[in-house]
Amino acid sequence: MSNQKLTSFNPPQRLLMGPGPSDIHPRVLAAMARPTVGHLDPAFQTMMEEIKAGLRYAFQTENALTFPVSAPGSAGMECCFVNLVEPGDTVIVIQHGAFGGRMKENVERAGGHAVLVAFEWGQPIELESVRAALETHASAKILAFVHAETSTGVSAPAKELCDLAQAHDCLTIVDCVTSLGGSELKVDEWGIDAAYSGTQKCLSCPPGISPVTFSERAADKIKQRQSSVQSWFLDLSLVMAYWDNSGGGARTYHHTAPVNAMYALHEGLVMLQEEGLEEAQMRHHAMHQKLKAGLESLGLGLIVDESHRLSQLNTVSIPDGIDEAAVRQYVLQKYDLEIGAGLGALAGKVWRIGLMGSSATERHVMTCLTALEDALKAQQYSVQDGAGTAAAMAVED
Amino acid sequence: MSNQKLTSFNPPQRLLMGPGPSDIHPRVLAAMARPTVGHLDPAFQTMMEEIKAGLRYAFQTENALTFPVSAPGSAGMECCFVNLVEPGDTVIVIQHGAFGGRMKENVERAGGHAVLVAFEWGQPIELESVRAALETHASAKILAFVHAETSTGVSAPAKELCDLAQAHDCLTIVDCVTSLGGSELKVDEWGIDAAYSGTQKCLSCPPGISPVTFSERAADKIKQRQSSVQSWFLDLSLVMAYWDNSGGGARTYHHTAPVNAMYALHEGLVMLQEEGLEEAQMRHHAMHQKLKAGLESLGLGLIVDESHRLSQLNTVSIPDGIDEAAVRQYVLQKYDLEIGAGLGALAGKVWRIGLMGSSATERHVMTCLTALEDALKAQQYSVQDGAGTAAAMAVED
Repeated sequence: MSNQKLTSFNPPQRLLMGPGPSDIHPRVLAAMARPTVGHLDPAFQTMMEEIKAGLRYAFQTENALTFPVSAPGSAGMECCFVNLVEPGDTVIVIQHGAFGGRMKENVERAGGHAVLVAFEWGQPIELESVRAALETHASAKILAFVHAETSTGVSAPAKELCDLAQAHDCLTIVDCVTSLGGSELKVDEWGIDAAYSGTQKCLSCPPGISPVTFSERAADKIKQRQSSVQSWFLDLSLVMAYWDNSGGGARTYHHTAPVNAMYALHEGLVMLQEEGLEEAQMRHHAMHQKLKAGLESLGLGLIVDESHRLSQLNTVSIPDGIDEAAVRQYVLQKYDLEIGAGLGALAGKVWRIGLMGSSATERHVMTCLTALEDALKAQQYSVQDGAGTAAAMAVED
Repeated sequence: MSNQKLTSFNPPQRLLMGPGPSDIHPRVLAAMARPTVGHLDPAFQTMMEEIKAGLRYAFQTENALTFPVSAPGSAGMECCFVNLVEPGDTVIVIQHGAFGGRMKENVERAGGHAVLVAFEWGQPIELESVRAALETHASAKILAFVHAETSTGVSAPAKELCDLAQAHDCLTIVDCVTSLGGSELKVDEWGIDAAYSGTQKCLSCPPGISPVTFSERAADKIKQRQSSVQSWFLDLSLVMAYWDNSGGGARTYHHTAPVNAMYALHEGLVMLQEEGLEEAQMRHHAMHQKLKAGLESLGLGLIVDESHRLSQLNTVSIPDGIDEAAVRQYVLQKYDLEIGAGLGALAGKVWRIGLMGSSATERHVMTCLTALEDALKAQQYSVQDGAGTAAAMAVED
């Protein structure tokens, strides 16, 4: 057996500006450390209802079926697919980055037939290609896409895609992991049928929980399933016996909820409400503008055009001759600053700089620019002193 | 949209003596509130290896494939079944409480054929019935059972069951949710092939994470699968690219780990190592002896015979004429004490009193006896003053 002597772990204090997790506000960390109560405690049940209300605000929905899945965003994705896809269903999946590929995997493992509509990583989604796929595959039941592609920094035209889906009698499953709280997102107005997100991006809570919401149309499709949902843990008909007591009946134990993680999510939702959803989105955009100006004056460009660019996830081209991993290591060691590497098709080609939730502040932007300039100079890259931070300062909020 | 104004949630400070979660030590709560780092941060990766070492100690195994699933025990259960069961496989499932039924669900949703060997709730598992099932269903690939049935308080003869399974060329999947850290459990010595647990029982960490371990035989069966695992989130071949770097390669992103929940688990494992596994098990037993003596002198009996009774989960018969829900409500309101209701076949017939991890202390036992005596007297039940606590005090550790 292992005889390795363990001692308490004291993590370094990082500035988290990668693709998530983002920096957690001390209020959220403090909430998470409050005393654990039982998952059926009356006090906890009251808080569960508040979480649902807070999530409805964040998603801009009145969907009854809105709650946090007790597992990370990948499980939230799987929750949407295994409940909505039945064996034999055709699902049109837009792939414009890493997470579309994961959606395809989910469709196929649920026994569905996935039709990929692929776009180059970093390029916009062309509606005409999606329309053509919907017309070609007229029996398709679902259109699935990623609203904010964390691997590329591209934003999808969610409203237009939902309109197209509805015109072709398809439900929509939308990955809102990185958009919730940071981008405009209107589940009801746009007619999104199923959305999933994560807590560790623009909500700035610790990773581990996945908020989801389902429209009545989606709930109807689930009720009419011919086969049982392949996952017991993610079967909505079972999970909702715990999360939904709108019928006035007692909640039924399904699994033991991650009580303290729910405290954290609750506090994050309180803070989002205090700031206001639109204000939070504007803050993300303002910080993006500052970062972009600073990067440009360092000679660094973003790979995504402004028309379809995310504020909260910035994919930065790596200049010729720069050792990108060494830059990340330099800023981590000297500045305790985490920025992300490229993923998939963009590995080695970009850095991913996150401005999410509590990490979307001037301090983060300025520290990041300072650290990058320092790291680039250490590799003999030619930058004027303070060019990045000066440019960022010149941008008004 | 919801306009409900949310404010920070301040939970009551309970004494948790239900079927889990158990009380969390302040060291664990403090660990969980430490600053979040990235899930690929070098510091976090070091801690991941320490968690694996700590879990190997707790499970008493040298299995390479030992790690925490990023979701509650129910997902740990599903992780074992969806990876090990292939469509068409026959799995013999022992049902001696609620969780055997859940195992059957898991087998069937994974496309397997479940053969139930059922025992009355609260009664011991009879090895001869299991042997007969193994003989009748000679093509069975797996024997699955619950080591410590949280719904009944019954302990399974795990070693003998593993011997039987091996004699019939079956792998074993063992639910160790409530046994890990509280009961004797020797994964390697007994030859358990797959085990899953939860953090919120005898490890006294917050709920939300499920430690699992797989033997080499189990890993081989997974490698030889003809079909892909139906769950993307729980597919070990993908998850282990993140959790295992024994090949010396870089870890690959699969999902974003619940970073702070892992801090908590790490600290819980440090504390288990400090106390010692055997000492922790002996403490659970000593507190059970005290509780039992106190209950008896209050005229309360346990439904499970001593020969197969758990220390950490006590199923207490409800005396005639007592309103069991009113008793639970009374002790919750007056003593901030949570005890559990009966589940399934035992609903309304028992209370479930947990003595798990940090809740297995003299203070918990004495408070519980005092509170129960008070609550029973409030219902005109005849008890001598201080009978329970006096009897508990008379039991030497």
